[in-house]
Amino acid sequence: MSDRTNSPLPDIQKTQDTRNIPIDKVGVRGVKFPIEVLDRSQERQHTIGNFTLTVNLPKEFKGTHMSRFLEVLNVYGREINVHKLPDLLKALTERLTAKEAHIEVRFPFFVEKAAPVTKKTGMMEFECGFDATANGHFDLTMYVRVPVATLCPCSKEISQYGAHNQRGWVTTRVKTNDFVWLEDLIDMIESSASCALFPVLKRPDEKWVTETAYENPRFVEDMVREVALAFDGDSRIDAYEIEVENEESIHAHNAYAYLARTK
Amino acid sequence: MSDRTNSPLPDIQKTQDTRNIPIDKVGVRGVKFPIEVLDRSQERQHTIGNFTLTVNLPKEFKGTHMSRFLEVLNVYGREINVHKLPDLLKALTERLTAKEAHIEVRFPFFVEKAAPVTKKTGMMEFECGFDATANGHFDLTMYVRVPVATLCPCSKEISQYGAHNQRGWVTTRVKTNDFVWLEDLIDMIESSASCALFPVLKRPDEKWVTETAYENPRFVEDMVREVALAFDGDSRIDAYEIEVENEESIHAHNAYAYLARTK
Amino acid sequence: MSDRTNSPLPDIQKTQDTRNIPIDKVGVRGVKFPIEVLDRSQERQHTIGNFTLTVNLPKEFKGTHMSRFLEVLNVYGREINVHKLPDLLKALTERLTAKEAHIEVRFPFFVEKAAPVTKKTGMMEFECGFDATANGHFDLTMYVRVPVATLCPCSKEISQYGAHNQRGWVTTRVKTNDFVWLEDLIDMIESSASCALFPVLKRPDEKWVTETAYENPRFVEDMVREVALAFDGDSRIDAYEIEVENEESIHAHNAYAYLARTK
Amino acid sequence: MSDRTNSPLPDIQKTQDTRNIPIDKVGVRGVKFPIEVLDRSQERQHTIGNFTLTVNLPKEFKGTHMSRFLEVLNVYGREINVHKLPDLLKALTERLTAKEAHIEVRFPFFVEKAAPVTKKTGMMEFECGFDATANGHFDLTMYVRVPVATLCPCSKEISQYGAHNQRGWVTTRVKTNDFVWLEDLIDMIESSASCALFPVLKRPDEKWVTETAYENPRFVEDMVREVALAFDGDSRIDAYEIEVENEESIHAHNAYAYLARTK
Repeated sequence: MSDRTNSPLPDIQKTQDTRNIPIDKVGVRGVKFPIEVLDRSQERQHTIGNFTLTVNLPKEFKGTHMSRFLEVLNVYGREINVHKLPDLLKALTERLTAKEAHIEVRFPFFVEKAAPVTKKTGMMEFECGFDATANGHFDLTMYVRVPVATLCPCSKEISQYGAHNQRGWVTTRVKTNDFVWLEDLIDMIESSASCALFPVLKRPDEKWVTETAYENPRFVEDMVREVALAFDGDSRIDAYEIEVENEESIHAHNAYAYLARTK
Repeated sequence: MSDRTNSPLPDIQKTQDTRNIPIDKVGVRGVKFPIEVLDRSQERQHTIGNFTLTVNLPKEFKGTHMSRFLEVLNVYGREINVHKLPDLLKALTERLTAKEAHIEVRFPFFVEKAAPVTKKTGMMEFECGFDATANGHFDLTMYVRVPVATLCPCSKEISQYGAHNQRGWVTTRVKTNDFVWLEDLIDMIESSASCALFPVLKRPDEKWVTETAYENPRFVEDMVREVALAFDGDSRIDAYEIEVENEESIHAHNAYAYLARTK
Repeated sequence: MSDRTNSPLPDIQKTQDTRNIPIDKVGVRGVKFPIEVLDRSQERQHTIGNFTLTVNLPKEFKGTHMSRFLEVLNVYGREINVHKLPDLLKALTERLTAKEAHIEVRFPFFVEKAAPVTKKTGMMEFECGFDATANGHFDLTMYVRVPVATLCPCSKEISQYGAHNQRGWVTTRVKTNDFVWLEDLIDMIESSASCALFPVLKRPDEKWVTETAYENPRFVEDMVREVALAFDGDSRIDAYEIEVENEESIHAHNAYAYLARTK
Repeated sequence: MSDRTNSPLPDIQKTQDTRNIPIDKVGVRGVKFPIEVLDRSQERQHTIGNFTLTVNLPKEFKGTHMSRFLEVLNVYGREINVHKLPDLLKALTERLTAKEAHIEVRFPFFVEKAAPVTKKTGMMEFECGFDATANGHFDLTMYVRVPVATLCPCSKEISQYGAHNQRGWVTTRVKTNDFVWLEDLIDMIESSASCALFPVLKRPDEKWVTETAYENPRFVEDMVREVALAFDGDSRIDAYEIEVENEESIHAHNAYAYLARTK
């Protein structure tokens, strides 16, 4: 093996490129890595990150050095939160000799939830994440995706009894000027729904969620507006995107609404 | 180029294998191909098949010849139905010198559906398919996956008003002794639900589907049993598997039931 | 039933909304519909569209009328191409009384391809689509996603023999000022790769594609730059986004590059 | 709230069913839950399980009690391994008054891997899991899915230089008569490939994996046979299923092989 490893191996990536085309982002995608994230009630939570890590590539260079992204992740990626992300991005710009570095990470995030009446607890999963960029200044977007129950106001109004309802998915991207827990965003979104979802529901709980949803009908239009009102009312939030997709129980297709606002 | 193409290229696949291990199935997967399938109301329907084509490989041979699967598909794959599948399988066994050939194909299948009251029509998609094997005799399984509305009997019974409902997915595999339309299976499954889904629903239709679902509550347990009763009542059906998965609107997880029976 | 359908049913959607929040986009998503698209060699091709159809919703209204999206699709959605999309969008703005309408459609698109040496033909699928907006003027983006073979220049250079290669995915969004065939974009992308993919390859063809890839090594960085050069050289193209993701055969994660440019 | 919770709520699920149809499996699917699994080098590893939990339902009962699956998971689901699964299944049969209980769980499993030459380490993820049934006796199947590099023997043989290679996926289900680490199965599978994959590869490592793959060409047929030989040589393994799918770098479709054996 020694003859293989001792030979001086050329570095093709750093050879000069003559095509004169800078590349906005280059790096690695779909990198899975065990991480710890901050947890409002337990301080910390073990979970698994799915990372895209990229930097800009100046027009002079043929390629970036992909293995360095993994080396930086090994050192700086164990803890993923708003306090640690700047270090990870700084390390990327330094190791890759880049002006700009980006991270996109998504992870399952668990919250213990109690049933509304019996208070039986269980774990519920939310897809969360961060999108961050460093290019002189640090720019962060929080990502939270929350399943909710939505009950159709039209169906309720026009029907003698019942009302169609379904699982809906609320996806939000939020820019903040101060620390915000992932759980804070989840709470605001769940409060905007016909009813929140729960991991464990005994019969008294099921009665409660059924009636609560019936009393709080929501179109996808209502959902994006109610979440927008909640975000508008939180001074820590500067800008947001809200997307709601209802898995309509009367159709094979979905109802959809999207709203973006910078305060 | 001629020196490349004129050279006699060795056939590695047909060299002898000494590991003494026959392989159950070898071939190609994820092959997309435009097809025509039979349609109860329009005679024929253009759609797109996603194919897995395999044969057995005797222990004597190192490999199969993958390109021949595609060549057979080119000739025999344009029309996919119970009458044409035996020819495709026979061609596979001949071209690949195999005793056994298998096909799995899935395709989007469209049915024009009229709204229950206004009769407004639209197209609704179902995932359908065939699994077939030829090894001396021909063995066929039909595959149909149907989205439906299910309304929870417990939620209805215990609540003062409303009842949680949701989109559910009924997946069936059916062995038949006579010709059965894909639409026949779809009809039997939709009739077993709290209510069928529709592409276009105006307000009078929405009132109808809301009230119909409320009048016909179904657990996943009810769904598999009702579909089983429908299949039991059709003498063309010899055996079946039924799987139901409800995207519960009160939970982030699904309710699930499975039932298999050979008459 | 008549008592149900004759009753005047209230229109909740058009009731006034007091939250004072306009919604950017509201409509339907995941609507599957059989369509015809233009085909450079066959004139037309049957395929299946997956649609998102949306309009803006002024702050005054509680909701949009979801069923009308499906009705418009029924009338205007059979043929999907640059000539027909303006009519579909115009019909959406009129039926939904909106200022702005959007369509996103993705469909499998088949091209008959001949093997490079034996000329054996087969069908190869590409994911294609259109994103269009009408808000006074008509704005169109073409979408094409092409799988290619990429061979690593570094691996080739540093190894005594062989070079790792893999399937890569090139995803492009293109704004044009004149008619461009989907096949034109596919051709430009395939020509930029280490080698194009083929549905049927006999041994002389496999030799050709293996050697061709070895002679044309490409990083993801090379891929985005080569496609950018091709798009820069076509005066019908005004702006583009190019994304390349290599399913690295030496890693479980992917290499990724992204480049956007407005000429 | 008290009037709601104090009312005696009927138990619809336990009412008698007259359709005379027992159900094979009924329960919950897609339940996410944070777990700990056994780890050969670290003793334990935090990860996230995706569970399907089911029991049989006798023909006499209308339904099962879905919330109890979650309650049992809360108590018995924190540690998932061969020693703990019997307790979880026993609790399911008791709480659900069933004769048979089933668990299917899949989880990301991380292994620290060192690069072959530089020994740089990183984390690599494998999808692992268990399928277990209790119905008087306890029956366990281990599930391991491993990405590998495969280099085509035909392409190597017929080409003057180079050889197409790609990421392949080896999926195995294994019945054992003694304790086997997930890592043991992963090792056997990786050793059967043209080359294993690695999270971090510096240039000397990349040279090594490129040349190693070139020296060890493997068809999908070779892969299933080599893994079968490895499993045959381990007396702790009683039966297995092996599935290999190569993301062919010269085609848009995959090569596939499947082999099952009970010793």
